[in-house]
Amino acid sequence: MNSLGRLFRVTIFGESHGTTVGIVVDGCPAGISLMEDDFHKDLERRKGGIQKGTTPRKEDDIPSFASGVFNGKTTGAPVTILFQNSNTRSTDYEKQKNIPRPGHADFVSHVKFRGYEDYRGGGHFSGRLTVCLVAAGVIAKKILSGISIDAKLIEAGGEKNIEIGLQKAIDAKDSIGGIVECTVKSLPVGLGEPFFDSVESLISHAVFSIPAVKGIEFGAGFGAAGMFGSIHNDAIEDEKGKTKTNNSGGVVGGLTNGNDLLFRAVVKPTSSTPKEQESYNRDSGRVEKFSIKGRHDLCIALRVPPVIEAVTAMVLADLLLIEGKTGFKQ
Amino acid sequence: MNSLGRLFRVTIFGESHGTTVGIVVDGCPAGISLMEDDFHKDLERRKGGIQKGTTPRKEDDIPSFASGVFNGKTTGAPVTILFQNSNTRSTDYEKQKNIPRPGHADFVSHVKFRGYEDYRGGGHFSGRLTVCLVAAGVIAKKILSGISIDAKLIEAGGEKNIEIGLQKAIDAKDSIGGIVECTVKSLPVGLGEPFFDSVESLISHAVFSIPAVKGIEFGAGFGAAGMFGSIHNDAIEDEKGKTKTNNSGGVVGGLTNGNDLLFRAVVKPTSSTPKEQESYNRDSGRVEKFSIKGRHDLCIALRVPPVIEAVTAMVLADLLLIEGKTGFKQ
Amino acid sequence: MNSLGRLFRVTIFGESHGTTVGIVVDGCPAGISLMEDDFHKDLERRKGGIQKGTTPRKEDDIPSFASGVFNGKTTGAPVTILFQNSNTRSTDYEKQKNIPRPGHADFVSHVKFRGYEDYRGGGHFSGRLTVCLVAAGVIAKKILSGISIDAKLIEAGGEKNIEIGLQKAIDAKDSIGGIVECTVKSLPVGLGEPFFDSVESLISHAVFSIPAVKGIEFGAGFGAAGMFGSIHNDAIEDEKGKTKTNNSGGVVGGLTNGNDLLFRAVVKPTSSTPKEQESYNRDSGRVEKFSIKGRHDLCIALRVPPVIEAVTAMVLADLLLIEGKTGFKQ
Amino acid sequence: MNSLGRLFRVTIFGESHGTTVGIVVDGCPAGISLMEDDFHKDLERRKGGIQKGTTPRKEDDIPSFASGVFNGKTTGAPVTILFQNSNTRSTDYEKQKNIPRPGHADFVSHVKFRGYEDYRGGGHFSGRLTVCLVAAGVIAKKILSGISIDAKLIEAGGEKNIEIGLQKAIDAKDSIGGIVECTVKSLPVGLGEPFFDSVESLISHAVFSIPAVKGIEFGAGFGAAGMFGSIHNDAIEDEKGKTKTNNSGGVVGGLTNGNDLLFRAVVKPTSSTPKEQESYNRDSGRVEKFSIKGRHDLCIALRVPPVIEAVTAMVLADLLLIEGKTGFKQ
Repeated sequence: MNSLGRLFRVTIFGESHGTTVGIVVDGCPAGISLMEDDFHKDLERRKGGIQKGTTPRKEDDIPSFASGVFNGKTTGAPVTILFQNSNTRSTDYEKQKNIPRPGHADFVSHVKFRGYEDYRGGGHFSGRLTVCLVAAGVIAKKILSGISIDAKLIEAGGEKNIEIGLQKAIDAKDSIGGIVECTVKSLPVGLGEPFFDSVESLISHAVFSIPAVKGIEFGAGFGAAGMFGSIHNDAIEDEKGKTKTNNSGGVVGGLTNGNDLLFRAVVKPTSSTPKEQESYNRDSGRVEKFSIKGRHDLCIALRVPPVIEAVTAMVLADLLLIEGKTGFKQ
Repeated sequence: MNSLGRLFRVTIFGESHGTTVGIVVDGCPAGISLMEDDFHKDLERRKGGIQKGTTPRKEDDIPSFASGVFNGKTTGAPVTILFQNSNTRSTDYEKQKNIPRPGHADFVSHVKFRGYEDYRGGGHFSGRLTVCLVAAGVIAKKILSGISIDAKLIEAGGEKNIEIGLQKAIDAKDSIGGIVECTVKSLPVGLGEPFFDSVESLISHAVFSIPAVKGIEFGAGFGAAGMFGSIHNDAIEDEKGKTKTNNSGGVVGGLTNGNDLLFRAVVKPTSSTPKEQESYNRDSGRVEKFSIKGRHDLCIALRVPPVIEAVTAMVLADLLLIEGKTGFKQ
Repeated sequence: MNSLGRLFRVTIFGESHGTTVGIVVDGCPAGISLMEDDFHKDLERRKGGIQKGTTPRKEDDIPSFASGVFNGKTTGAPVTILFQNSNTRSTDYEKQKNIPRPGHADFVSHVKFRGYEDYRGGGHFSGRLTVCLVAAGVIAKKILSGISIDAKLIEAGGEKNIEIGLQKAIDAKDSIGGIVECTVKSLPVGLGEPFFDSVESLISHAVFSIPAVKGIEFGAGFGAAGMFGSIHNDAIEDEKGKTKTNNSGGVVGGLTNGNDLLFRAVVKPTSSTPKEQESYNRDSGRVEKFSIKGRHDLCIALRVPPVIEAVTAMVLADLLLIEGKTGFKQ
Repeated sequence: MNSLGRLFRVTIFGESHGTTVGIVVDGCPAGISLMEDDFHKDLERRKGGIQKGTTPRKEDDIPSFASGVFNGKTTGAPVTILFQNSNTRSTDYEKQKNIPRPGHADFVSHVKFRGYEDYRGGGHFSGRLTVCLVAAGVIAKKILSGISIDAKLIEAGGEKNIEIGLQKAIDAKDSIGGIVECTVKSLPVGLGEPFFDSVESLISHAVFSIPAVKGIEFGAGFGAAGMFGSIHNDAIEDEKGKTKTNNSGGVVGGLTNGNDLLFRAVVKPTSSTPKEQESYNRDSGRVEKFSIKGRHDLCIALRVPPVIEAVTAMVLADLLLIEGKTGFKQ
């Protein structure tokens, strides 16, 4: 389904070239201050417009509160936020209709929805909808009073220096991927459940809902495969559970252990590369070469950090509400 | 919660040193042949008992059908399978009670459950419960008629040759981790949903419910961070969606694309290493050195492949039922 | 939560005097023809505007497709339908703010949401939102191809003749309740589950979500209390399960039995009666007499039949999708 | 599915003539005292064995804790309770196999599960499983500290005097139904949600999961159809929301209003009447007369009150946990 969460439950809807994209946030506590300005910072970060390698498509991204907010505060009823799609150039995509773009959902959505999918700009599968995730995250972060979430791009195009990675992409006229690292500080001990609702299960579930993410690792992550247990184990140092190292990434037995929650996600290179590619043309019945037109980021990973923060905040807000441990500013 | 799945829904329960561990499988179609023998192979694989580095604890692991099976077939009612815990030596753990073992859930469960947790052998957090996951997987696999799932350990202790990795652990008298690769063949196109119920979201959710898993990557995974888009994109070659490469791991836009579903999971070194460790003793109020006694695997990753297959089968059985695309042998 | 359904899942949002009310329908199959005109008939029935005793408030009730519809067909992505609230006179309610109206949610919502609720016209608790339910029902009915749902008011103000009941209300200058009977024909055998997801459980869950409904009974209903078993039991007459009588209302063991699904719901008198009433004034700290101003129906039950049909259709569409038994016109 | 609840989630399993029936209670807080003795009273009430008109089948009904209880307290892990089926006489039912009993699930379960159902004694559809509901209710009641739930039979066979109703059944050698009234005292204001998770929705959902229940009404219930609004409205008398009357049954706008939660449920006559009946014989292809043998209650309604209390407690425990308002004795 297009919903996430048990008590703090977010439903997402919309298409890249429809009139509106939006979210319904159910289970949001009453009394949280919520204004248009609250969304500005993270929505701007998501645009990534300042850095080189990001798309020239500009949306105003102004959140419109359709429900659940009254006199500047949440009411306890479902909060619905709408974003108008003002800046659509659908004709770019009409031509592409019968050649499913590699790396995009064109082919799979066409099969799954039997030809009824809105194919313009990826339709419902578009990265455009991450604006909704960011908006949900802004609300979720308000529930995480005293807890900080910080995601940043730590690698682009295989380079630790983001600038160099981006220049590599520009020089090659090709798109690149990247790695985003996310750190959450000041979480209480004991969020999550053993087995199916482990914190890793819930965070990874949410993070993989972001288009282009193809991997996630907690703490030492894949590096753990080459470590001895005596090294990987994080020695407990005090009664609050502080550990000497953090190879577990702050999660043990599926539960937060009070140390920093730490994970990294890999973002694949933007599927819409300027390079010539090949795909099967359903009309001609042949594999054909083509180039993708339109406005695209060379490194979509640049725009992913606020989205990762947002879905992480959604999961943690939900877990805090389940444990009855939220504090928020009214 | 301790449940997974929407139509094919598995609930897990039990503790390492309680009388019984088990599962309830709700939504299992009627008419599936189910006998004790069906469970033997995967349950044996999970024991991993033949290889060096695995625990000497021996459970008979005989599944007992408490409900939902009649005359050797599933009835459509919830299928409950119980396993008796015959081989428990609780006293091993009593001594350990006030020193939370690093890498284990001892500390977090003690805080979360305010001292009421069953601390013997990790209680509900124990790897013992993976016997239940494997059992659920046996049923799920029956729903995946014509689809094969194959997980294997491809790296242990940082070595591609498993034997060498294990010997390293034995020589060092320390535990090691590993990497498991899972391949699913013959899936239909279009399983999964965009965003929150992407195949990656659902698979990762399930895989992280396995104790000791700390990372997952699909297709090229973390390697994608250093690839150009023109390389990472899998060119579509025919009307069925066959691709030239499989860097996406068989999932595009959150949906299966008809190519092999391919992912790797990293398993951390067994937390119960024979090496001396440090932790905080709640009684003495001091950090103390101690060694873990009891029966433990040096490389728990050896036993993980059938568990990964099982949870993968659970997710896919659920998705096939949702799409109305199951075929099973009656 | 503000959602209903497992595969066909409806989320409702909005307030009586906010800008917008709406629904998101998740899990709607692709390829269903959906146009503004499809909604006209049931939305008009809900207005109930022709009959005496209904409110003079007029909304245009024009559904706006915000997502999930493309070229006149559903796409398989979430369908979002918005209705603008054009006809609001909030000042009517400002005066009432500190005197919770008996029979309304004013008091309970004030306590639950700690004073942050949107109190204008009942806010999120308003019958206005039933326009959303009706809209969801229009979509659901399209999934019930070949199945008919027919709800009608069979009693008003204690009278079997609706006209007489309404005149009674007009004469008494007081509001009245009524009983709505709903019949569903041509359902397959076997929808629903034993115990928690019995058809009665699911239908009643949905029907009680309609404001003002206070009771429901299936088949002989409360009359069964005075019947002998030999009379109440419906004798099975053929291999398709046709029964001689229908005291069970078409549900046995929680499952549809292929006969007409038949139930009745009681709708309480409109809470906003023109009569003088008493309530506790939070400002004065005294019980006070007052009269409700504003535009209200004398018999809200008149408008309930299409809403009952709608939620019934939602439940049945969900069950048919779960059983993989839908047929719909593309 | 065979589960109920969001945070306090009960899963039920088993068959009338299988080895075991049971429940898994997920989300049960840690530290609740739980012993075999706690179950005795309600399990005995459910047996109804002292009164005339109840079945001579005797089960010991001894709850066995398979998980989630340690040293006499809940651990926070799933609580699994098993009951052995000791007293089964399956041969009674073998003869009946091809003549679906009117009022029973025989026909519908045969169609739904395509002949694979366990037909002995109703299989999974049996009233035997209400022992599991009662057990879950015992746990739930412990979470409702300070809240009382009291259900009693107020009418049997159409008579307000239960003894007379029962004698009527005995004299007629036929089964009878009844009406159970349930009152919950000392609930906080504001449990439940508007629309889909109204308290009436949740309670009715749970109550209709009890076999044989065919109707439910809150407060004045169906009587509201003949009342004027000025009479039905419950005048609010103080700042705590106490009302002069309780026609709403303690629920307004879907939320508890702090007054007694009051509802009545109708229980149909026991389907297994001693009277001769007719049904379609699948073997002979003809409608045939037959009489039901075996051990059955003339008035199953006698045994329903503790079951209604149990499912009501389950719903309320869940709502209290969601609101973070539980208090329980450790």
